[in-house]
Amino acid sequence: MASSFGRLFRITTWGESHGGGVGVVVDGCPPRLALTEADIQPELDRRRPGQSAIVSPRKESDTVEILSGTFEGKTLGTPICLLVRNQDARPEAYSEMATKFRPSHADYTYTAKYGLRNWQGGGRSSARETIGRVAAGAIAKKLLREHFGVEILAYVQQTGKIKAVADPETVKPREIESNIVRCPDIAAAQRMIRLIEKARQAGDSVGGIVTGVARGVPPGWGEPVFDKLTADLAKAMMSLPASRGFEIGSGFASILMTGIEHNDAFRAKRGKVFTPTNRSGGIQGGISNGATLYFRTAFKPVATVMVEQDTVDVALRNTTLKGRGRHDPCVLPRAVPMVEAMTALVLIDHALRHRAQCGSEVL
Amino acid sequence: MASSFGRLFRITTWGESHGGGVGVVVDGCPPRLALTEADIQPELDRRRPGQSAIVSPRKESDTVEILSGTFEGKTLGTPICLLVRNQDARPEAYSEMATKFRPSHADYTYTAKYGLRNWQGGGRSSARETIGRVAAGAIAKKLLREHFGVEILAYVQQTGKIKAVADPETVKPREIESNIVRCPDIAAAQRMIRLIEKARQAGDSVGGIVTGVARGVPPGWGEPVFDKLTADLAKAMMSLPASRGFEIGSGFASILMTGIEHNDAFRAKRGKVFTPTNRSGGIQGGISNGATLYFRTAFKPVATVMVEQDTVDVALRNTTLKGRGRHDPCVLPRAVPMVEAMTALVLIDHALRHRAQCGSEVL
Amino acid sequence: MASSFGRLFRITTWGESHGGGVGVVVDGCPPRLALTEADIQPELDRRRPGQSAIVSPRKESDTVEILSGTFEGKTLGTPICLLVRNQDARPEAYSEMATKFRPSHADYTYTAKYGLRNWQGGGRSSARETIGRVAAGAIAKKLLREHFGVEILAYVQQTGKIKAVADPETVKPREIESNIVRCPDIAAAQRMIRLIEKARQAGDSVGGIVTGVARGVPPGWGEPVFDKLTADLAKAMMSLPASRGFEIGSGFASILMTGIEHNDAFRAKRGKVFTPTNRSGGIQGGISNGATLYFRTAFKPVATVMVEQDTVDVALRNTTLKGRGRHDPCVLPRAVPMVEAMTALVLIDHALRHRAQCGSEVL
Amino acid sequence: MASSFGRLFRITTWGESHGGGVGVVVDGCPPRLALTEADIQPELDRRRPGQSAIVSPRKESDTVEILSGTFEGKTLGTPICLLVRNQDARPEAYSEMATKFRPSHADYTYTAKYGLRNWQGGGRSSARETIGRVAAGAIAKKLLREHFGVEILAYVQQTGKIKAVADPETVKPREIESNIVRCPDIAAAQRMIRLIEKARQAGDSVGGIVTGVARGVPPGWGEPVFDKLTADLAKAMMSLPASRGFEIGSGFASILMTGIEHNDAFRAKRGKVFTPTNRSGGIQGGISNGATLYFRTAFKPVATVMVEQDTVDVALRNTTLKGRGRHDPCVLPRAVPMVEAMTALVLIDHALRHRAQCGSEVL
Repeated sequence: MASSFGRLFRITTWGESHGGGVGVVVDGCPPRLALTEADIQPELDRRRPGQSAIVSPRKESDTVEILSGTFEGKTLGTPICLLVRNQDARPEAYSEMATKFRPSHADYTYTAKYGLRNWQGGGRSSARETIGRVAAGAIAKKLLREHFGVEILAYVQQTGKIKAVADPETVKPREIESNIVRCPDIAAAQRMIRLIEKARQAGDSVGGIVTGVARGVPPGWGEPVFDKLTADLAKAMMSLPASRGFEIGSGFASILMTGIEHNDAFRAKRGKVFTPTNRSGGIQGGISNGATLYFRTAFKPVATVMVEQDTVDVALRNTTLKGRGRHDPCVLPRAVPMVEAMTALVLIDHALRHRAQCGSEVL
Repeated sequence: MASSFGRLFRITTWGESHGGGVGVVVDGCPPRLALTEADIQPELDRRRPGQSAIVSPRKESDTVEILSGTFEGKTLGTPICLLVRNQDARPEAYSEMATKFRPSHADYTYTAKYGLRNWQGGGRSSARETIGRVAAGAIAKKLLREHFGVEILAYVQQTGKIKAVADPETVKPREIESNIVRCPDIAAAQRMIRLIEKARQAGDSVGGIVTGVARGVPPGWGEPVFDKLTADLAKAMMSLPASRGFEIGSGFASILMTGIEHNDAFRAKRGKVFTPTNRSGGIQGGISNGATLYFRTAFKPVATVMVEQDTVDVALRNTTLKGRGRHDPCVLPRAVPMVEAMTALVLIDHALRHRAQCGSEVL
Repeated sequence: MASSFGRLFRITTWGESHGGGVGVVVDGCPPRLALTEADIQPELDRRRPGQSAIVSPRKESDTVEILSGTFEGKTLGTPICLLVRNQDARPEAYSEMATKFRPSHADYTYTAKYGLRNWQGGGRSSARETIGRVAAGAIAKKLLREHFGVEILAYVQQTGKIKAVADPETVKPREIESNIVRCPDIAAAQRMIRLIEKARQAGDSVGGIVTGVARGVPPGWGEPVFDKLTADLAKAMMSLPASRGFEIGSGFASILMTGIEHNDAFRAKRGKVFTPTNRSGGIQGGISNGATLYFRTAFKPVATVMVEQDTVDVALRNTTLKGRGRHDPCVLPRAVPMVEAMTALVLIDHALRHRAQCGSEVL
Repeated sequence: MASSFGRLFRITTWGESHGGGVGVVVDGCPPRLALTEADIQPELDRRRPGQSAIVSPRKESDTVEILSGTFEGKTLGTPICLLVRNQDARPEAYSEMATKFRPSHADYTYTAKYGLRNWQGGGRSSARETIGRVAAGAIAKKLLREHFGVEILAYVQQTGKIKAVADPETVKPREIESNIVRCPDIAAAQRMIRLIEKARQAGDSVGGIVTGVARGVPPGWGEPVFDKLTADLAKAMMSLPASRGFEIGSGFASILMTGIEHNDAFRAKRGKVFTPTNRSGGIQGGISNGATLYFRTAFKPVATVMVEQDTVDVALRNTTLKGRGRHDPCVLPRAVPMVEAMTALVLIDHALRHRAQCGSEVL
């Protein structure tokens, strides 16, 4: 098990989808940040099931309680423990899963690894685990915004074959939040919603791409050679449930260009360096260069589908299984706050790491 | 700086392209593995410049010396330090870079971060740093092969628009090594070589995709929720110089399928579970499922091109710079052993981590 | 903040003495260990205030709730979160501490470090934080006992000038628990209790020494050169509140012997190596040698005393302060389960680390 | 194996006493520190054998080479690799040790753990490993002195029964270096030297205590609850070869005082807080309070003695062994630079960690 992420702003998530609750411990948060539940709850509300017609109807208020680490509304510099109780658990919906492995879920691999699993829902592999990430990410976002001038956002770039047109440099949070699929291209959003509804009615599911953006990151964040910003963002995204691919800047499309076409020239203006193009996605040699960071994460179509599928039972006999339970026909609308949270967690960690080694006080 | 990778089989690389040398310390290698320089040198030979007409002509024998950690030809369980001296350094070729930032290189970001840089070559951001990775990876590959029955390989999947046809399940190492571009599809390989030669003649460069493969990985490796095998492989690949994207199994293409189409059904045969399809790429819920692991890494076209480009000097004045020095028109042939090394390093680390928590002796 | 301990069996504690509660996340526990609250509560009962006439009268049941990580009474291999709510908090008793620093407490240093502190009790520096350690330690003790045959215990060796006579090889848990001071030498225990009661009546406090013991540790645990068993035990003990010194085996007294006198000769009997003397305390070169581990930790007299003392207020003016609140006149009886817990946490971590690198399956 | 120490200023040592050499990689050193071999060599000269009549006569110049991490005499912020070649290795002196375990050495435990060992000298458990620590410590000391105003020193406090009188607040480096035993109390030093010479002539050895001191540490360094400054110093000292005990401030003697007697009152003067007494040793609640840090480490008498001793051979038969080879009759004079190095490594790491979380730029 590896339930911690980050080196200096370090989170440890815990909890299964069915059990006492889920949560996170945040260790290393700078002291004296104003922080109450009201700073965290809105992000959880963006993540929670039941928020719209195109996500899982599981009824969870996902109300967060700060158990430690603050005093009189400010962070103490001590570990912050955040707790969300599980409410609408319906283990009976999963009784068949006690003995059968759901295809393309983690049921089989958890059993192979640990010799047992909590079969009431996804257990630890449920997307419910991301509550801890999103709660911790809310703190990271606040720190980045208020103390480093960094703005984090994410949006749905593509669902199935439907692509949005959006510019990472200018897209606004309210555009993203203007519709339930969280796509700033309103026309595309409407088509995406119809696609998702159609998939739900068919008992099927669809995947897509979320674009993550960070604006205002100063030059110098990122720790070569292994903790390059690209590497840590890739790890963060590929640790999210259902993610299948990651690309930064020009990404996979870069291979269709030559070096001469692809390079970002440098220019200077009033003592500031910038690149008129940004194929690097704001990162060069693993270190931020002052341009906007943008990257894409692919999420596969949700594995839970309401049709009969071939599978195997725990006695290793061939059988079939039909999906049940309350699931999302498309993970993307709820993945948006997850991508933002993980982006914020990577960046605040690197902000502190950069300050530790290269802070101006010392040298 | 973050020069270490791995939790239990932990490597620390060091060294600049111009300086005393480059190398690696491997900490946590199991004891009693037969190991001499002869186990490591062949992998370095696959990585070194000057090996063929389509890579950099820098003359480096890259001869490795084991400084510690072995005794009478066996590993002691103590840290293994491996040293490669730099030989054919030509800092004079870089004199113009002392005052100008090469576009899409790390010159500017290193200066922004650290306030200085070794401008004689890429310094720490040079691909020469990967010598330590490849040397350590040779040890990891040997451990995986001899003691876990795991085979690691990688090959060039695409260069520019030229795509190879190859099956991760069956491709053979000698097919990959049969040509200088390291592509098992011979017809495609010939076209790729011509493309790279053409780029070199034009002072230009091309990018492409390397596929990484691991066969024989048992079910159960990978540590949710943050150190999923997918997440650690993504980080490993995205920490390599020039990498721009990563995808596992069906990857970005998964979004064009629905859940019903995409799921890998389970089947059992003689007490073993398998999936007739392998869109998961051998990993489900971040844990290996016993199928072949395969993934793709996109490498951008090399940033060093022999034409005049706009850039900025250290006094932040606009200027131009034309590439010089001995560079690769395409990083892919030499990236193949790097991808293999990083894959092996991820897997051996997870093999040991899995044994620590879930080893059969305890429970 | 550094709220985590251990590399593979890793705990993260959180919580202040006054606030929502205290607890711990245990990550890396092997799966399939039978575990319910009944395995943990007895150790918390040995640690809790109000358990006897010679400890703090604060009324806390310290009832533990397992929030995650178990299913049907067994560990899942996923993170185990344990929660204990605070009950009998009386912040009003601390109102004077809002503006004055208690001498030899952490009030001043926390304020100097973080710029603020929870002045309602010791906040994070309160011994209440050790609830998480003791709860996690209960799991570690169970694993060591049931799966590695290792027995952990600790006892009060000295209080003020009163020394106990006890043999680490043979002392029994029920002897330790036979009296409220937790000293297996009954005559000494009676005198210690009188000394502590006298100190309490005088508004004063006393310190002493706790001996920690581990029997049945096999040869080979411990990770040179930095994570020697001696080094990690020292760190563990010196991280406990009020600890001032640590010694292993012959400890400080070793300097009064010469090498010829001090060495532990080796002898073999029926294929087993042993040392007739055990001045090494069971550890040589940082690795267990199969003999009983024993070491001593010195705890200073408790800093809270009920007399007027010179101090400084938050405006940095000289003033005086008289202790209030419910405190222990001697930390030792409650330190015994803390020492056991930290010993168990060090040993289970090293058991897993040893298995990872040197486990018999591989080489 | 655990060859790394420190979180942000992280060192990794490697090398056996007989083999290609020994060394260290320092990762995380701030950039732009002036650094050449001349900054490091003097500390190695204080540590090396052959420096005086009372230490091992092994002839090693211990000449250090900087392999990476500097450019034009300044640190780059990249990993610094330091190499010292072994010269005067005489494996033939150890041939008997190939089959017999030296009492109270690590021969038996290394074999039990790893299944083999480098029997030519102590291998990895040799004090030669500390070359890497002392070399890295020289960099840490320079950083602390030049950029944080912190002075580190250590001296021999006691040898056998001979105690020195010295005040941590005022002792000067040149007083310590004025004699070959490194004791600032000249009269005591003369007696210590005679004691050590007598032990050597008898083929015997003696132990003692080294006091470590850090002056000028600002309030606020140290990371509760596990990485308290006390805990990390204890671990650092107890990771040194032959160390058996550690105490901070009043240490074990604190248990002979009551709380009223032991507390350090606070006083304020011109806006600065101080404690007229310093029984806390400069650390309260694990965090520095601005007073001088001082602590003591006990080193046992060296295990190599030139008399016949009972032991066991690798076939587990009882036998005897007489010490050979070139060893120290007393480790203390050479332990002084080791204690200084480890103290500096702990403090620079905490300086950077404190800056990361609590640096003034953010909040």
